[in-house]
Amino acid sequence: MHDNSAILLIAAPDKKGLVYTITEFIYKNQGNLLHAEQHIDVTNNIFFMRLEWDLSKFVIPSSQIWQALSEIRQVWNMDMQLYFSYNKPKAAIFVSKSDHCLFDLLHKHQNGELQMDIGLIISNHENNQRSADFFNIPFKFFPILKENKEEQELQQLAVLAQKDIELVVLARYMQVLTPRFVDTYKNRIINVHHSFLPAFVGANPYEQAYKRGVKVIGSTAHYVTETLDDGPIISQRVVEVSHKDNLQEFVLKGKELEKLVLANAVKKHIERKILVFQNKTVVFD
Amino acid sequence: MHDNSAILLIAAPDKKGLVYTITEFIYKNQGNLLHAEQHIDVTNNIFFMRLEWDLSKFVIPSSQIWQALSEIRQVWNMDMQLYFSYNKPKAAIFVSKSDHCLFDLLHKHQNGELQMDIGLIISNHENNQRSADFFNIPFKFFPILKENKEEQELQQLAVLAQKDIELVVLARYMQVLTPRFVDTYKNRIINVHHSFLPAFVGANPYEQAYKRGVKVIGSTAHYVTETLDDGPIISQRVVEVSHKDNLQEFVLKGKELEKLVLANAVKKHIERKILVFQNKTVVFD
Amino acid sequence: MHDNSAILLIAAPDKKGLVYTITEFIYKNQGNLLHAEQHIDVTNNIFFMRLEWDLSKFVIPSSQIWQALSEIRQVWNMDMQLYFSYNKPKAAIFVSKSDHCLFDLLHKHQNGELQMDIGLIISNHENNQRSADFFNIPFKFFPILKENKEEQELQQLAVLAQKDIELVVLARYMQVLTPRFVDTYKNRIINVHHSFLPAFVGANPYEQAYKRGVKVIGSTAHYVTETLDDGPIISQRVVEVSHKDNLQEFVLKGKELEKLVLANAVKKHIERKILVFQNKTVVFD
Amino acid sequence: MHDNSAILLIAAPDKKGLVYTITEFIYKNQGNLLHAEQHIDVTNNIFFMRLEWDLSKFVIPSSQIWQALSEIRQVWNMDMQLYFSYNKPKAAIFVSKSDHCLFDLLHKHQNGELQMDIGLIISNHENNQRSADFFNIPFKFFPILKENKEEQELQQLAVLAQKDIELVVLARYMQVLTPRFVDTYKNRIINVHHSFLPAFVGANPYEQAYKRGVKVIGSTAHYVTETLDDGPIISQRVVEVSHKDNLQEFVLKGKELEKLVLANAVKKHIERKILVFQNKTVVFD
Repeated sequence: MHDNSAILLIAAPDKKGLVYTITEFIYKNQGNLLHAEQHIDVTNNIFFMRLEWDLSKFVIPSSQIWQALSEIRQVWNMDMQLYFSYNKPKAAIFVSKSDHCLFDLLHKHQNGELQMDIGLIISNHENNQRSADFFNIPFKFFPILKENKEEQELQQLAVLAQKDIELVVLARYMQVLTPRFVDTYKNRIINVHHSFLPAFVGANPYEQAYKRGVKVIGSTAHYVTETLDDGPIISQRVVEVSHKDNLQEFVLKGKELEKLVLANAVKKHIERKILVFQNKTVVFD
Repeated sequence: MHDNSAILLIAAPDKKGLVYTITEFIYKNQGNLLHAEQHIDVTNNIFFMRLEWDLSKFVIPSSQIWQALSEIRQVWNMDMQLYFSYNKPKAAIFVSKSDHCLFDLLHKHQNGELQMDIGLIISNHENNQRSADFFNIPFKFFPILKENKEEQELQQLAVLAQKDIELVVLARYMQVLTPRFVDTYKNRIINVHHSFLPAFVGANPYEQAYKRGVKVIGSTAHYVTETLDDGPIISQRVVEVSHKDNLQEFVLKGKELEKLVLANAVKKHIERKILVFQNKTVVFD
Repeated sequence: MHDNSAILLIAAPDKKGLVYTITEFIYKNQGNLLHAEQHIDVTNNIFFMRLEWDLSKFVIPSSQIWQALSEIRQVWNMDMQLYFSYNKPKAAIFVSKSDHCLFDLLHKHQNGELQMDIGLIISNHENNQRSADFFNIPFKFFPILKENKEEQELQQLAVLAQKDIELVVLARYMQVLTPRFVDTYKNRIINVHHSFLPAFVGANPYEQAYKRGVKVIGSTAHYVTETLDDGPIISQRVVEVSHKDNLQEFVLKGKELEKLVLANAVKKHIERKILVFQNKTVVFD
Repeated sequence: MHDNSAILLIAAPDKKGLVYTITEFIYKNQGNLLHAEQHIDVTNNIFFMRLEWDLSKFVIPSSQIWQALSEIRQVWNMDMQLYFSYNKPKAAIFVSKSDHCLFDLLHKHQNGELQMDIGLIISNHENNQRSADFFNIPFKFFPILKENKEEQELQQLAVLAQKDIELVVLARYMQVLTPRFVDTYKNRIINVHHSFLPAFVGANPYEQAYKRGVKVIGSTAHYVTETLDDGPIISQRVVEVSHKDNLQEFVLKGKELEKLVLANAVKKHIERKILVFQNKTVVFD
């Protein structure tokens, strides 16, 4: 990632002149285009675009770019998001007992492979405190019982708000979030489900897969919506299995996929490369 | 494949001495083991095995091997199948309009990659007559309408019986077979479904996949049972897709998978490498 | 593919305003952008772009577009190619004995999956005449011996010139072309080599791979240059193998890859989606 | 893995009765076969086998099994290895600066996915001390300079001997071992090379791959022999790349492969599932 760039994500009804208009804005204000990628959804006639340009000689101060784009936004009826590469996203990681995804994210983060700030780790189990300490990330333990679930979630939301968290990563967090939580972080909660959705929704997907006798198993990272395991899919990976693999081997093979799809989805999100439209994603390269 | 070998497929309750007993039988009768592969389903305590041995010095005539194995079969409570490599399976291919799987099978067959006799091609469309002629395979046209479906199937079954067909390959045959047909060819009808089952059962799986916004699509070859798209899975393959792929590209990418899984499943079946147990398959290497 | 569009392929030194300038040209002349994809090679500071726009309301006649772009081309020092979707590329397929790639291309072409005209099939064996007839493609037999090789090639080039062939597809053609031939069709000869290059250059790559004991085998489609198997790579695919696969199974598995990479490379070429720069390719989506 | 089983690895000239003889030995001594897998290398007429049986009712004490097998070994001219599942292999991990493979191995080991004892970590850099401490594994720092290389290696060998290390894992250890070291641990040093060998041998394989413009990159785990990157291949994995991936992205994608192939190779080795023959491996399932 560039360290002084602006990133624009656009969705708009497709019309002649869109690319011209937006690249004219950047060019005439001395912006050097670093990346531009577009996609036209022909079925819905929607134009999607991601632009990134160098700000070093850009004549509009960053704080005024949003305002400067207001006319274009209005005229072309654009749904627009503006980000700056020097503002790292603040994320929280939620995890239950299984720590393979957590560890993978923390290790990649430590090595500079994930450009975000991890504000804290939240868990309903205490076992991951030690790993959090090792990676110097604050850890909060929220035990969840049926009777305290709603209350605990309110507390979690309070902590997230206080820490300005904008992205929630469910790294094998085995609790279903309430609609209130999901609404608060719409398109900003990434979950990993251990099957190739839409197959094997819900609990114990590896067991479901094993019983069905499939020859490939998969893993899916997706944004969380109110319907369980039904949100927009960001990333999927699969691996071959055979009758020789028992349930335990399904789980071991699957873990590798879970790490890959979750880390990939988080990377795409924090690089501002994902647009969501009608429960589907556009994931730019 | 060896050209003068016996092949034994066994499923039995797992007990001490199984491998010893059966290899003793082969060894003591001067059989040279060419291939032996076993698998234990620990959950169900079932032992599966495939053995292949050279018959050239075997002292029991082929016609008496089944009888000679009767005691072992009884004592060990074995479910057993015996085949000889010089008896090529006789197959019929069913196809509708789309001919990519048909062509792939015919071309591989012509090149000696599929050791079976293709007794005939049956279609509910006439367009594939020309290809059948090119590959010198008899072709029968059975137009299917709601009102003649059962009757036509009876005719088809009569033709299959008359030609001693033992394997039915549905190479994109877009008609659901009746239970009578399925019963007649239990575990001997191979279908290709154009999704990674159990996702996207039924009609238009690519359209379903496209609407769901998946990032991988797949294809599945399976034995046909009375429940649609629910039979034992033999082979599955997947390919990555993205928002850049429209429905037509899903179809084109999928076609390649369909060919691969169907040809692979047919090959395994005619090499006598598949055992079915409780709606799952053991597919030997 | 659109049926009335212009396609522009551009390579140029990267400078501020490139995208703006070219999209302005299209927009101001009433072209509706159908596809735009760019890539910046940061190491070499080269900008690559593919643009496609609808010609139905474009105010410049097709015959004058090249001229109209001359100033932009000069000012920005662009290497530019212009194509029209209604001009289908004319291709010749060269093949030796093995016909799996040939068949795959002909079948896809027949089904409308490859938008090109196949002007003729050239072979140093006669066996593929019958298939050529079946698909209604002219066939020419050029037996090649050491002593007549150069002469035969001259004859081949003459036929290609006479038929206005612009793309040569080597679908498992087991003859090394002379530099004269390669020069005549620079970046317009696509070959399939049956290994994941640069491993196993030259003869018998499957045997080389088998002897080395690799656990994956691959296939590569590339443009032909004067150095054997060293040209710009367009497409590669691999498949897992194990000790259980003998050389024959390497070959069978490999054939599937060969078909996939060659068909894919041809498709990309005829859709004008490939740019070659310094022995590497940019392959647009 | 079973916790009280014997494992037999056999390589022998293929002869009638081999499987019978060895399964008779196990059966007649009250061993319950848990796993049996064989492979015949037809080219070299060599028979490979892995057998595992439950020792709980086996009538020969573990300490006498080797002796009890001596006649069979001699008569059939078998190359034989005998292991017991309760004897966990002792391994040492060598690592330089990059810690992704190290971390992956340590984390899997901690979670019980790799049944071995990690006796120590050896590094020519100090940075991994902290991780070693976190996972409670002894760490030894051996700085390597041209002038002290041989001496340091002698010291390393002394430590390995003292700790009874039987397996050396080079988890991105950027030093070439001397022939003395390699001889001492013949077929017991596993290295990960960051390319799909035999392509891109030696230094900077990702850079080599990037320059060649390949469309897939790979990673290889192999036993170390005296010739650099030429030893028997155990595991290989690849991932697609495109012109959009710069060198840094090659490295990031490659890291995931390196972890997968190395962990897989180590797992196979410690489960006694690998046989080496003529610079190739048989890797049982």
